Amino acid sequence: MSPHFAIPRVGTGVDVHAFTAPGSGRPLWVAGLKWADDGGLDGHSDADVVAHASCDALLSAAGIGDLGTIFGTGDPRWSGASGATLLRHCAELVRANGFEIGNVSVQLIANRPKFAPRRHEAQAQLTAAAGADVTVIATTTDGLGLTGRAEGAAAIATAIVYRSADAPTHSG
Amino acid sequence: MSPHFAIPRVGTGVDVHAFTAPGSGRPLWVAGLKWADDGGLDGHSDADVVAHASCDALLSAAGIGDLGTIFGTGDPRWSGASGATLLRHCAELVRANGFEIGNVSVQLIANRPKFAPRRHEAQAQLTAAAGADVTVIATTTDGLGLTGRAEGAAAIATAIVYRSADAPTHSG
Amino acid sequence: MSPHFAIPRVGTGVDVHAFTAPGSGRPLWVAGLKWADDGGLDGHSDADVVAHASCDALLSAAGIGDLGTIFGTGDPRWSGASGATLLRHCAELVRANGFEIGNVSVQLIANRPKFAPRRHEAQAQLTAAAGADVTVIATTTDGLGLTGRAEGAAAIATAIVYRSADAPTHSG
Ligand SMILES: [Zn+2]
Ligand SMILES: [Zn+2]
Ligand SMILES: [Zn+2]
Repeated sequence: MSPHFAIPRVGTGVDVHAFTAPGSGRPLWVAGLKWADDGGLDGHSDADVVAHASCDALLSAAGIGDLGTIFGTGDPRWSGASGATLLRHCAELVRANGFEIGNVSVQLIANRPKFAPRRHEAQAQLTAAAGADVTVIATTTDGLGLTGRAEGAAAIATAIVYRSADAPTHSG
Repeated sequence: MSPHFAIPRVGTGVDVHAFTAPGSGRPLWVAGLKWADDGGLDGHSDADVVAHASCDALLSAAGIGDLGTIFGTGDPRWSGASGATLLRHCAELVRANGFEIGNVSVQLIANRPKFAPRRHEAQAQLTAAAGADVTVIATTTDGLGLTGRAEGAAAIATAIVYRSADAPTHSG
Repeated sequence: MSPHFAIPRVGTGVDVHAFTAPGSGRPLWVAGLKWADDGGLDGHSDADVVAHASCDALLSAAGIGDLGTIFGTGDPRWSGASGATLLRHCAELVRANGFEIGNVSVQLIANRPKFAPRRHEAQAQLTAAAGADVTVIATTTDGLGLTGRAEGAAAIATAIVYRSADAPTHSG
């Protein structure tokens, strides 16, 4: 009576934030982790591009808006929220709308932080927030573009979700 | 006798067009909607980056080429075609090649238009064109890069398709 | 006893390399093919952005790291490796970790090479390397950004993988 399979839905999201100058006193938050106490990314909340791109990918996969429509840009409730907090909330919204999350794949595109040594730690942090597997990779752009000139950091994420009603059953 | 499930295919596409200067008389078309009568995006057809990125994601998922190989750059048949028209044709090609479309997720990356107020209208327009769910989200790049300097607008899309022969059956 | 379907995993990756100046003597390798004997892309191995982005998408989908963590940047074993060789190795790692590859969709974003005439050849080359369908499309960025100014070439890839244990069975 049940369908033989379900077609999952995909979503994709990009985020960019500018680096503040040294001496800004702005901490650097990326992928749910704090990397430095100064010269961090600027913008709403903690400007965690990896978490924000993941949020947008999830929201888009579920077809329920984006960071701007969900969190606004001036809403005080979220103005100081961490990227992990936003990701947790987005994942809850996705589930409340009848979807389960397959996985999220997100790539940091930036000269800093030097990501690889804390990759597993970052993945654990975002996976806990999303309640689903989040894998994080990193690259640079060979000195070119806004990321190569270290004007800012970017992230790109893709997510896959499926309707809860289609959840795999392991009974025969 | 039938397989227990089908593996869908994914596709991704990016598109960028430059803004014309104020006074160009060029209308701004984005995501199947007209947003302004002047200073719009330049390029082939109506330069609708959201529709074009969606086309490329679908064509790539089905493995049947891209906007350039399908529509050429100088073919008069498509020179004035709207983004929605191109998307409709691409979706038809995808189906004619034996695939059904799961969904398309596309993000506008641009300073303008201010997208959120007409998001649902845009989604309805592109969903009708594709004959499958198209979700559109939007973001900016914090003043950085070609989009942050308002030199142009970009869009990134991901699509999922599956073979028609593998379509879900609801009979037991 | 088996689940009615499997949820595949998605992964995404971007890569950028700078063009060398005319007279560099550096060949141009893109998408597993040689396009010119001079003025090619700079960087580790052969700087094949299409192959590298495909590698990162696959590694991320399987959650097993990225190009940097797998190949390092100074490892002599891979310093001269072709993009196709790296892609073959990444696909083997993905399978050794218990996944099958659905497909890879990758887009070249660059002013050169003029990609369309050799698209099928490129797809055949990368499909053979990955042991799974790789579709390659191409676009330009209307003279804008690092790719539009021909400072470099970029590529963006999305991949879908699924657990080998969930492989479709055709027995009834
Ligand atoms: Zn953000
Ligand atoms: Zn276009
Ligand atoms: Zn590379």
